[in-house]
Amino acid sequence: MSDRIAINSSYVEQIASLIEVNNFTELNLIIADLHIADIAEIIEDLSIENAHFLFNLIEEERSASVLVELEDDTREEILSDLTAKEIADGVIDNLESDDAADVIGELSENKKEEVLALIEDIERASDISDLLTYADDTAGGLMAKELIKVNENWTTIQCLKEMRKQAEEVKEVYTIYVVDDKDKLLGILSLRKLLLIERDTAIKDIIYTEIISVKATEDDEHVANIMSKYDLIALPVVDDLNRLIGRITIDDVMDVVKEEAEKDYQMASGISEDVESSDTAWELTRARLPWLLIGMIGGLLGAKVIGIFDLSGDNFELAFFIPLIAAMGGNVGVQSAAIVVQGLANDSLKMENIFQKLVKELGVGLLNGIICSIIILGAAFSLGYSLALSLTVSISLFAVIVFAAVFGTFIPLTLEKYNIDPALATGPFITTVNDVLGLFIYFMIGQAIL
Amino acid sequence: MSDRIAINSSYVEQIASLIEVNNFTELNLIIADLHIADIAEIIEDLSIENAHFLFNLIEEERSASVLVELEDDTREEILSDLTAKEIADGVIDNLESDDAADVIGELSENKKEEVLALIEDIERASDISDLLTYADDTAGGLMAKELIKVNENWTTIQCLKEMRKQAEEVKEVYTIYVVDDKDKLLGILSLRKLLLIERDTAIKDIIYTEIISVKATEDDEHVANIMSKYDLIALPVVDDLNRLIGRITIDDVMDVVKEEAEKDYQMASGISEDVESSDTAWELTRARLPWLLIGMIGGLLGAKVIGIFDLSGDNFELAFFIPLIAAMGGNVGVQSAAIVVQGLANDSLKMENIFQKLVKELGVGLLNGIICSIIILGAAFSLGYSLALSLTVSISLFAVIVFAAVFGTFIPLTLEKYNIDPALATGPFITTVNDVLGLFIYFMIGQAIL
Repeated sequence: MSDRIAINSSYVEQIASLIEVNNFTELNLIIADLHIADIAEIIEDLSIENAHFLFNLIEEERSASVLVELEDDTREEILSDLTAKEIADGVIDNLESDDAADVIGELSENKKEEVLALIEDIERASDISDLLTYADDTAGGLMAKELIKVNENWTTIQCLKEMRKQAEEVKEVYTIYVVDDKDKLLGILSLRKLLLIERDTAIKDIIYTEIISVKATEDDEHVANIMSKYDLIALPVVDDLNRLIGRITIDDVMDVVKEEAEKDYQMASGISEDVESSDTAWELTRARLPWLLIGMIGGLLGAKVIGIFDLSGDNFELAFFIPLIAAMGGNVGVQSAAIVVQGLANDSLKMENIFQKLVKELGVGLLNGIICSIIILGAAFSLGYSLALSLTVSISLFAVIVFAAVFGTFIPLTLEKYNIDPALATGPFITTVNDVLGLFIYFMIGQAIL
Repeated sequence: MSDRIAINSSYVEQIASLIEVNNFTELNLIIADLHIADIAEIIEDLSIENAHFLFNLIEEERSASVLVELEDDTREEILSDLTAKEIADGVIDNLESDDAADVIGELSENKKEEVLALIEDIERASDISDLLTYADDTAGGLMAKELIKVNENWTTIQCLKEMRKQAEEVKEVYTIYVVDDKDKLLGILSLRKLLLIERDTAIKDIIYTEIISVKATEDDEHVANIMSKYDLIALPVVDDLNRLIGRITIDDVMDVVKEEAEKDYQMASGISEDVESSDTAWELTRARLPWLLIGMIGGLLGAKVIGIFDLSGDNFELAFFIPLIAAMGGNVGVQSAAIVVQGLANDSLKMENIFQKLVKELGVGLLNGIICSIIILGAAFSLGYSLALSLTVSISLFAVIVFAAVFGTFIPLTLEKYNIDPALATGPFITTVNDVLGLFIYFMIGQAIL
């Protein structure tokens, strides 16, 4: 059994120096021992030249799988070095149809056609070309064509025979699908049942029909929610006539779940593009600028709001609590929006209940508002601020919290209604709007009381 | 094939009214048709009384699985209504060992012992009691004892025979594990290979030994990263002597991934407990208060900082840009922290590179700082603010952004070093500290220039 190796930077440096001195023998030994996912991780950490060098050392059958494990930009870099012939024979030929389609999908239009034309197995080329027609973020974009299917009219013996034939092409057998003569999906056969059953049973008698399938056009997040809700390892994909056209496996869906979670998390943190800590400083800067710019616009609006009111005289003390009011408005808004976004993402929040949701959020806002405003009244007064100022801050805080809670709930629900990603609302928009409106509320109340 | 039903509120209301009129016939028909995950979803949405009522209608074998699908608090509620005998016979008996251990683990100490004593199958009781010794967030806490294992010295025929016997207890067959006479894990056998191979081959000749296993004490997030990195459906768990003691399946790990992502997301949004939009207003309030209180403390500190400086005279214009400076410090800090937290969560960021990381973040901070400060200088001046004020804001903004970027990177890395969840840093702490320190920097520079 192979022990897992910690891919740390000293290990990567060691490999880099073996590459520098062209120590093929040692490198080949190391590569042969490593899991493809580990080789991919090392390639990510190497310089571009060294990455090409190492990639070319990997034996053909494994190099295709390594390619699939790479990040998009590294894969593009490696592919740019290969001819259409090398991609068709060395890469595509060694991949399942879904991975093959993903790789080809990343090529330029010209190269794409060239590669497709070079695939020798016509049926396979047509499978891949089919898969390319589906959008990346749909069930069709996730599915593979390889699967084991048997006819309902067969017996277990015929079935085993046919499966032996089909299994040569399918890397992993998760489920056996049962179809009728028209290829319509009827149910599945569990490998377990096949192991337990008499050899000459009719498939019809042991078929399990309580299964779940998806249409090829369904959204990938929806697919992920279904597979996770029903604890499925594989999910059959059908066309509009319920004919079996592919299957999605859990590992691909796991990637969707992780990517979606990362995207939402980054949006909530004000990062606008998909970046990683290993990206360049410029990529990281670019991903962060939009949100900072919106923050600046909010800041300038805030300055205008403060400018409307006369701060030069006795009212200058109002300035002390500007950070508190602005921060609290933003915070409450983000909290409210986050709960809605999460509820929508895992399908637990139903869109029909918008009104109920707003009423409940109003309740949460009132509770938080009352607690916070009582605390701040006591705290500010006992810290030596005047009663009038303490009262102003307390009342404003209450108003800002209630307003921000309702507004923070309303915005993502509205975005969802118009099919805009509601996670947008947890970032720039809510915070900035609440900052500015919060200040306005604060100064209005301040002028009335002071 | 069963069509999926949309569990919306009108559907739940319909069921609630069937319960009110005791329409058993209709309810039994509906339940029989529904997937256990859907029944669980409906129970979540019903009142407590109706939930008990519906749960008792479910046939025994399925009701145990429904119980496992419920949220913790609902499950606790349902379990409180069952006697130890009912739990042992009706629930535990129908679950795999990992789910059984999870259910028993939620009972009070007394009831736990009672239920364990009532389990008739001694070996099973001992398996479950074993599993209860592992912490929830470890590989041991995730694994199940049910698995199919064969001896390396057997032939495929013996193997199939033994598998038929074992498979009766195992719900899903993912992998067949091969062990030696001492139960040490040697490798796996793929079902596919078993389908393709001659009937009388020695297991030794078709065993696949390049497998990955984990120790029972390993962290659940680490397990999730391994399974996702290596695209594994099942992962064997071994003890310190490399003896096979259980297996973890991908569906359990999927839940870990989702929960971790939700937790990080909620922390980034300032929500301190695990809540859902369906929780009560009070639960939602409680989850949000801590972060709001920290925000208030930050606001009070901010007030103190502003109070140090003399705003009553000509300097009152400095107040205009308080929201901008405070917001930008917080925003940059959260962005920097989020990238570190995410890198640490998916193992792509190596702790050894802290220094490199800080240098790069300094670069990002400098870039963002230069861009933002140039823009704000132009914007403020052209909006009619004095050159001195515009310069003050611009220079302060640059200083605040650079400082916040480095600080936002440093804090989560430090938390990680001391084994505190680094996601904490994306919430209250970073924003508040950066707010206050940003204001301080701003007024210092303001006093120097104005």
